[in-house]
Amino acid sequence: MTKKTKVNAAILIIGNEILSGRTQDTNTSTLATWLNSIGVKVNEVRVIPDVEKTIVDTLNVLRKENNYVFTTGGIGPTHDDITASSVSKAFGLKYEIHKEAFKILEAYYQPGEFNEGRQRMVWMPEEADLILNPTSGAPGFSIENVFCLPGVPSIMKSMLGGLKNKIVGGEPILSHTISLRTVESEIANSLTKVQDKNQDVEIGSYPFFHAGKLGVSIVLRSEDQSKIDLCKSQISEFIKEKKIEIVDR
Amino acid sequence: MTKKTKVNAAILIIGNEILSGRTQDTNTSTLATWLNSIGVKVNEVRVIPDVEKTIVDTLNVLRKENNYVFTTGGIGPTHDDITASSVSKAFGLKYEIHKEAFKILEAYYQPGEFNEGRQRMVWMPEEADLILNPTSGAPGFSIENVFCLPGVPSIMKSMLGGLKNKIVGGEPILSHTISLRTVESEIANSLTKVQDKNQDVEIGSYPFFHAGKLGVSIVLRSEDQSKIDLCKSQISEFIKEKKIEIVDR
Repeated sequence: MTKKTKVNAAILIIGNEILSGRTQDTNTSTLATWLNSIGVKVNEVRVIPDVEKTIVDTLNVLRKENNYVFTTGGIGPTHDDITASSVSKAFGLKYEIHKEAFKILEAYYQPGEFNEGRQRMVWMPEEADLILNPTSGAPGFSIENVFCLPGVPSIMKSMLGGLKNKIVGGEPILSHTISLRTVESEIANSLTKVQDKNQDVEIGSYPFFHAGKLGVSIVLRSEDQSKIDLCKSQISEFIKEKKIEIVDR
Repeated sequence: MTKKTKVNAAILIIGNEILSGRTQDTNTSTLATWLNSIGVKVNEVRVIPDVEKTIVDTLNVLRKENNYVFTTGGIGPTHDDITASSVSKAFGLKYEIHKEAFKILEAYYQPGEFNEGRQRMVWMPEEADLILNPTSGAPGFSIENVFCLPGVPSIMKSMLGGLKNKIVGGEPILSHTISLRTVESEIANSLTKVQDKNQDVEIGSYPFFHAGKLGVSIVLRSEDQSKIDLCKSQISEFIKEKKIEIVDR
């Protein structure tokens, strides 16, 4: 059996607005889907408040435990945007004006509009690499294995394309979903047996309620298509035996 | 100044489906909104995989650092539902059949339908308190300050009502939002001054893009309405000076 390279990441969502319930986070799902597609498995997500010590401490744990860390939020121009200064502290780096970022924003705004508030967005840890922002000018940045992105979902998403060359993924994580017109308890024992026989395939079982009917989606995940296929055939067997209907979802 | 009691909580979302990006978590926002309304502030959210050691270790950190911990996910009948057994391990408690839960599910299902898979859902840490489930029978449970809820959003939500008497909140956290037709950099300096003068009000600034127009929502949060009102009046002053339009959102 060839040993596949595993590459993992943590996502760190920074922002009181998520913790208060005011804002529904969607960046986790966007980032996780994208990371999976390039062979990076998300190990952990944390949501923390705009508090410097918390950001510094959490980042210093996550960046040691994961190949990559992606932060979102806290890089705008207002007083509650403290991600860049906190990341500087976490790495023990100077927090200073990034010359290239300054030039980008100076050119982006009309003459006279690049005011003090906006200039706050070019303060970064020294020697940060920029992550270009095709949507609204202000770049994100990376330091070592930490990538800092904005919190506004559409802007965050628009910046992922520019990251592709900076992230080295492992084998892409493949998945296959089988949706059934059944309930979990009907298939639980059979599915346990399949999982026991296929320990290195991640088998998830997720009940759903769609168009007035209950169902279960079985999700198979592995870097190896042949292992997924083997699970599929074993699942097909017990589905046939139990006369369970397969549904499109 | 009367010192207000602060009560805090962590949310622990357990499930590979969130980390893979397949499923958009909405339980965080539901729980956080509800907890805020009863005076419990969410300090932290973590999303972790269905891995026993990770659940045990994370829970043992969070339950010591917070007044309450709420978990969602992993309490169904299939092999990947390992929350109840993991919580038992975290507390060093026996994992056993909960007699009351057994009775509830035995009565809930038609004769003969309370099969082995379904019976898995009545295995819990010894002496767990049940959290009743008005939607689909299978109860959640609590041990000390840890409350374990299901992952399906509609079912999770339906169980919160039954928790009210078990959670002792602090002063409700009040909030007020002012939405403006402006961009963050226009108000950043003025808002910093208001924050400096009102250190114990949490002031957040959130850009939005709605109906084709940019805007900023300022969110003021405190347990003390008079402090929020003071901030409001200071913000009103600079809004007038700058001739910024207030918008409904």
